[in-house]
Amino acid sequence: MTTNETGTRAPRGPYAKSKQRRESIVMAAHEVFAAHGYRGGSLQGVADKVGMSQTSLLHYFPSKGDLLLAVLNWRDTVTGDGGARDPRESLVDAVVRQARFNETVPGVIELYTVLCAESVTDNHPGRDYFTQRYEGLRRSYLQQFSALADAGRLRPGVDPERAAASLIALWDGIQTQWLMAPERIDMAGALRDYLDMVILPE
Amino acid sequence: MTTNETGTRAPRGPYAKSKQRRESIVMAAHEVFAAHGYRGGSLQGVADKVGMSQTSLLHYFPSKGDLLLAVLNWRDTVTGDGGARDPRESLVDAVVRQARFNETVPGVIELYTVLCAESVTDNHPGRDYFTQRYEGLRRSYLQQFSALADAGRLRPGVDPERAAASLIALWDGIQTQWLMAPERIDMAGALRDYLDMVILPE
Repeated sequence: MTTNETGTRAPRGPYAKSKQRRESIVMAAHEVFAAHGYRGGSLQGVADKVGMSQTSLLHYFPSKGDLLLAVLNWRDTVTGDGGARDPRESLVDAVVRQARFNETVPGVIELYTVLCAESVTDNHPGRDYFTQRYEGLRRSYLQQFSALADAGRLRPGVDPERAAASLIALWDGIQTQWLMAPERIDMAGALRDYLDMVILPE
Repeated sequence: MTTNETGTRAPRGPYAKSKQRRESIVMAAHEVFAAHGYRGGSLQGVADKVGMSQTSLLHYFPSKGDLLLAVLNWRDTVTGDGGARDPRESLVDAVVRQARFNETVPGVIELYTVLCAESVTDNHPGRDYFTQRYEGLRRSYLQQFSALADAGRLRPGVDPERAAASLIALWDGIQTQWLMAPERIDMAGALRDYLDMVILPE
């Protein structure tokens, strides 16, 4: 929480307050969209949660689509991208670490799953975000699988490009099953099994 | 189309007409839910498509949730379940055949993807359907992977239960990527790659 009661840096006061307001709106929208989807969630429901009128809310986010993008960008800062934390971390360690972390934030995973699928429907404001996200993720994993192939560590016959799309697909799909039956599904285990088959030991 | 103009089997007339009406409502609902999701699609939109009032529509399907289940059950009859067509068909052949077929019905895949993800949200009427569907699919693939393990054809270290969940997950996830970039994603290829790694040659 940023307050500024001294008056020595007056311009930061209103800015900090506005920033706080935006953040609380984004958190409320996150809850509403995770529970009802983007189309099913209402701006009024978000406004009620933060105790402001819908008109005031629209002062911060001019449209429901703008609010959706703010929620998606906020999500990125929370969950990271499944990449290596430092250059010495292996692909499998980075993926398993991220999957284990995701188990601690089911609401965020639910939000991602619902909005991603919904974004394939007509004129959905999240479509470009998810299309670009998948392109970026495929490019990143393609690079990593290609580097492993160059090092002779990719299983013969495995195509780096298809493996990149498949790893992301497996991850998305296992999250859906986990949301429905968390006690039955081992997300990190499924991802490790896959990578252990694709990547040969050093 | 079933017509009955001869009058010889009078009772079938109204029944056949009612059945036709139900079918046209289900087809219209399929389009509306695929384009807008279940929560975003309106009963009025479905009624408009078939040219009847919302009140008349509710005579056939008492609630939007009932209509959703009718659409999901209809989907099952269109797409099948990815199982073998006859006992001699191998698991990989059956999966690849189904995936190739799915490429011909993008609207059905979109519907499935959207409704499945949406069903994890609060009080969604499709939740039980999808939970049971996943349980049934996991059971079916578990049986097939276990039989392959008994025949010494499962790669050492592969757990049949986790492989069953992973195959379904990969399939769901690759469908989502394909819906967004059909020219870039080879669904059948990704599934075959996976099964070729998991199952050893005869």
